[in-house]
Amino acid sequence: MKILLTNDDGIYAEGIYLLYEQLKKIGEVIVVAPDSERSAVGHGITLSRPIWYKNVKRKQKAFGYGISGTPADCVKFAIGVLLKVKPDVVVSGINLGPNDGCSVFYSGTVAGAREGALLGIPSIAISLDTFINPDYTFAAKFGAKITKHVYKNTLPKGTFLNVNVPNIKSLKIRGIKATRQCTVPIHGSFRKKKDPNLKDYYWMTGKVPTQKNNDKIDTYALGNNYVTITPIKSDSTDYDYLKEVESLRL
Amino acid sequence: MKILLTNDDGIYAEGIYLLYEQLKKIGEVIVVAPDSERSAVGHGITLSRPIWYKNVKRKQKAFGYGISGTPADCVKFAIGVLLKVKPDVVVSGINLGPNDGCSVFYSGTVAGAREGALLGIPSIAISLDTFINPDYTFAAKFGAKITKHVYKNTLPKGTFLNVNVPNIKSLKIRGIKATRQCTVPIHGSFRKKKDPNLKDYYWMTGKVPTQKNNDKIDTYALGNNYVTITPIKSDSTDYDYLKEVESLRL
Repeated sequence: MKILLTNDDGIYAEGIYLLYEQLKKIGEVIVVAPDSERSAVGHGITLSRPIWYKNVKRKQKAFGYGISGTPADCVKFAIGVLLKVKPDVVVSGINLGPNDGCSVFYSGTVAGAREGALLGIPSIAISLDTFINPDYTFAAKFGAKITKHVYKNTLPKGTFLNVNVPNIKSLKIRGIKATRQCTVPIHGSFRKKKDPNLKDYYWMTGKVPTQKNNDKIDTYALGNNYVTITPIKSDSTDYDYLKEVESLRL
Repeated sequence: MKILLTNDDGIYAEGIYLLYEQLKKIGEVIVVAPDSERSAVGHGITLSRPIWYKNVKRKQKAFGYGISGTPADCVKFAIGVLLKVKPDVVVSGINLGPNDGCSVFYSGTVAGAREGALLGIPSIAISLDTFINPDYTFAAKFGAKITKHVYKNTLPKGTFLNVNVPNIKSLKIRGIKATRQCTVPIHGSFRKKKDPNLKDYYWMTGKVPTQKNNDKIDTYALGNNYVTITPIKSDSTDYDYLKEVESLRL
């Protein structure tokens, strides 16, 4: 099994390294990841400036390719330039921070998996539900397990798995839930400050949805200490409403 | 009707100005757009650095707010900071270049509309199918027409309209088609060159899908000189496959 591994925290992040170590046990891993952090770049791609790559070592060993672009660029670049054969699976992560609900649009890590799916490759995004004190141990092992499963059983064309893992000891994890994407919006919250020249600036954070007891939805199941697996389509047509658009007279 | 207008070509682009002129005739227009071009930034948002805005004039008149961020930032910033009341409709465009098929993920313009939809506002993205010699006349008028329609009839929660317009004289436009999103991948094509220091760099372009006679799909209907309207959902859960994920034993 040939695994293409990417992320948005950058090739020097801890999460990608620990996932790499687990994936190595089950297949050939090619790491193609941004040369520095590209969090929240969504599914952006680099069309208006050049892209470079460099060979990256970690722990004195060849580790992968660092790309001057986004996670989606990395997947395109790997397939278009670096690899002779298409990978069997694209894995993106482990992300530092959850990517449930609307974050599937903001996240570069999720976009790495979506790009794989667009290109017809079974793909998985894996994220850890914390921004501080991450413990990637369980997520890395689970990532390898689900990668093996996806390789054996494949996925519907254009669909990828968005996996979120609670940041708690594996014994405390309550189980695995198949979930749908939470659609509660993440409203921007803007903190106004003054820069050294006394000009106003704003810093955005997100207001996350209030926790609910509904383990069928990724955000809430994750908050209730379940690993969540949300299958995400890359065809985003609203087929129900399409019929009404057909009857439009403009 | 309160219309929030954004784009990804930037607040000084021609397309947003001509659309503004038409929208002004049917409602109050608040322009909140990136302070320079942000093409292909996808649904990226700015979390790791500050955001500024400035008041922008065009043709010696107050025109709108120029934001140091992405189109999705613009929508969040408009609602979180600049506006006292939520807009009735979010319109994003007119984009220079088509946003059919997989480009709905790469495009900042489409992300502007998706962000509106995520925040519960009926939203529309409008793009013109050319990169050179644009004639926005028809697209701007059509944009106002469909905005009025959406204001009157609203849209399903979380769904927005992705409109693409051929760059031909209005008499040659064959009609309007309700379409689904083309899922043929846009493979990256990379041109290798040497920089002044003789270091290799790559420049990405996209290989667009081969034209087909299928006017139910946005890419092909657009190529056949139809205006395309694709309803796009922001819940991207694959509900069919969700059942299989539920039966997973990992």
